[in-house]
Amino acid sequence: MRTQIVIIGGGPSGLLLSQLLHKAGLDTVVLERQSRAHVMGRIRAGVLEQGTVDLLNKAGVGQRIATEGYIHTGTYLAAQNRGFRINFESLIGKTVTVYGQTEVTRDLYAACDRNGSVVIDNAAHVMPHDLETGHPYVSYNKDGHNHRIDCDFIIGCDGFHGVSRKQIPSQILKEYEKIYPFGWLGVLSETPPVSDELIYANHSRGFALCSMRNDNLSRYYLQAPADDPLEKWEDGMFWDELRRRIPESAADTLVTGPSIEKSIAPLRSFVAEPMQWGRLFLVGDAAHIVPPTGAKGLNLAVSDVHYLSNALIRHYQGDDEGIDTYSARALARVWKAIRFSWWFTTMMHRFPDQSAFDQKIQESEILHLEQSHVAQASFAENYVGLPFEP
Amino acid sequence: MRTQIVIIGGGPSGLLLSQLLHKAGLDTVVLERQSRAHVMGRIRAGVLEQGTVDLLNKAGVGQRIATEGYIHTGTYLAAQNRGFRINFESLIGKTVTVYGQTEVTRDLYAACDRNGSVVIDNAAHVMPHDLETGHPYVSYNKDGHNHRIDCDFIIGCDGFHGVSRKQIPSQILKEYEKIYPFGWLGVLSETPPVSDELIYANHSRGFALCSMRNDNLSRYYLQAPADDPLEKWEDGMFWDELRRRIPESAADTLVTGPSIEKSIAPLRSFVAEPMQWGRLFLVGDAAHIVPPTGAKGLNLAVSDVHYLSNALIRHYQGDDEGIDTYSARALARVWKAIRFSWWFTTMMHRFPDQSAFDQKIQESEILHLEQSHVAQASFAENYVGLPFEP
Repeated sequence: MRTQIVIIGGGPSGLLLSQLLHKAGLDTVVLERQSRAHVMGRIRAGVLEQGTVDLLNKAGVGQRIATEGYIHTGTYLAAQNRGFRINFESLIGKTVTVYGQTEVTRDLYAACDRNGSVVIDNAAHVMPHDLETGHPYVSYNKDGHNHRIDCDFIIGCDGFHGVSRKQIPSQILKEYEKIYPFGWLGVLSETPPVSDELIYANHSRGFALCSMRNDNLSRYYLQAPADDPLEKWEDGMFWDELRRRIPESAADTLVTGPSIEKSIAPLRSFVAEPMQWGRLFLVGDAAHIVPPTGAKGLNLAVSDVHYLSNALIRHYQGDDEGIDTYSARALARVWKAIRFSWWFTTMMHRFPDQSAFDQKIQESEILHLEQSHVAQASFAENYVGLPFEP
Repeated sequence: MRTQIVIIGGGPSGLLLSQLLHKAGLDTVVLERQSRAHVMGRIRAGVLEQGTVDLLNKAGVGQRIATEGYIHTGTYLAAQNRGFRINFESLIGKTVTVYGQTEVTRDLYAACDRNGSVVIDNAAHVMPHDLETGHPYVSYNKDGHNHRIDCDFIIGCDGFHGVSRKQIPSQILKEYEKIYPFGWLGVLSETPPVSDELIYANHSRGFALCSMRNDNLSRYYLQAPADDPLEKWEDGMFWDELRRRIPESAADTLVTGPSIEKSIAPLRSFVAEPMQWGRLFLVGDAAHIVPPTGAKGLNLAVSDVHYLSNALIRHYQGDDEGIDTYSARALARVWKAIRFSWWFTTMMHRFPDQSAFDQKIQESEILHLEQSHVAQASFAENYVGLPFEP
């Protein structure tokens, strides 16, 4: 088989890229290791920047977001059970949209089905080859048969553990990493969200976040040791601990119910440079990971897709400037989001080695944010998402 | 002897407090351990916030600042020899004034001499007593004779190593501290400043600062190990190292000359709480220390003087609200400046244990500051000084 662009990974970034390229008349094949049901079952964050919504619209998959997404004009922050609101809309005239990543993936698969763009699932042993030549190809195995797809470009949308980044020689690849000494214990429950907007809560017992997917689907998180056994956290204990960490007004009105999903995820900041190697281009988690504080993960993958889709389309129009500058342009925006996620995470969590001075600095940062209009504007500018460059 | 208020320490904060109280008709005695010549010989920072200039004017010592001070409408920041400017005036409509602390002290001593307020220098073994009673007093020795001054209040303006803070029982006093793993090597030289505004430079070899006192008196600093022997840093080596760390345009035009002062100072953040104990009130360095990055030390002492002078004047008018809330009100502003100085120091210096990730975060923070209008406004708001509350 031959195509122009092979996309490794059928998550939201790979599918979105395929849709944008398909609309521009380019041939793509998406190779996904898992079944579609597995991909659709992944629970991820659900706060979309306006630039993300705009690009999903451009790809023709924005209809349900417009009708079912929730526009949030602000967010709550809290310290020791005392909350305050940051109003993005009044500060900088922008908003975010709450719409689950699972739903984004569903919309993208539906679009692929409608317009016949190729997604091959259950593709095992996917491997890119000859990346330094003008004739790369990808091999994989499906249903016991080996296959090969020749192409012009291979795009690694296969996440942190994927095969793509590992193809870049270690003397070229530079990796930057910070592991945070805690995790997020997440619970999904079919209950009305405690707040109409997110609540990020700093507390001496640890961070908490009240988030949501829709009017009857809540998502709550607690800072917890990343190696805590899940069975330790039976539902009642989770709700009790959540109540202790959030503002009283929220704790008093919290509606609890059985958890329908419960998991602990570690927190990590990670960047791999460069994001291009020969005919291979990395997108999203394959090249960078942010801690979930501020929900930048999907949004950052979408910003890579913005730069890369433009670059590939221009390549087939005879202009390689976008291809040549992809890594630098994508990374410039990546590092800004990495910085913001690191800062927001550092400000809101308790660290095991935190001194009394460090803790006072943290309290001072949150108080400063509460009291300063320009500090809030600076927060809002990053939270709603820095603009994509053309 | 009896007076209303004994002020321990004849540096700028003690003298300014005495002048404000004197103008309000209150009796004060300032006790200074050193000779006046010694106090006037101290070299300190020289960037005054507008609130500081306003309070010096209120005390009647603003004439020379108005004629000899330099208004700075912005400052330069640099990373790896590439500089950019932050324009306070256009961002938030405020400026700072460059005028050396030594000159402030000179103006304050001249005012004391003019209006006959009492400053006793060479006062040895100064010790406050009976702070928990309504009848405190201070003992000291001068020229071999023991003295006692009875008073209503004792004010500790005697710096980090002074006797005042030590009077607060350790079960009451809470201290917060961060020691930075480096110092500032400072050189004063009778040369024209390399820039009309300050240059704060982050460089892989370490931080550098180009500052000034006047048109022919420059002050330069290099980050250096706090225990570096001074004799290691002969002048030529200092200038060579400075040139390496600052923007090329500055390095090319740097005028060098013999150093007339050279010293290494450690960097520390420190806060003691509370700032009141019975009839004792702490002001400035006696209660808190900031690293010199951003020049908050004197300005923060002046903000304490603002709150305390108002509180004492109102006390003698029969209103104790200011006295009762002094510690909380002063500390609220102190912690904001502590936070800013810590952040600015952390962003601009190289740390021995800095990981590659940490260093990229630092570069990203500076780049973010260069590119974001609201981030610059937030920087400017803190740099020019947060407002005093009434």
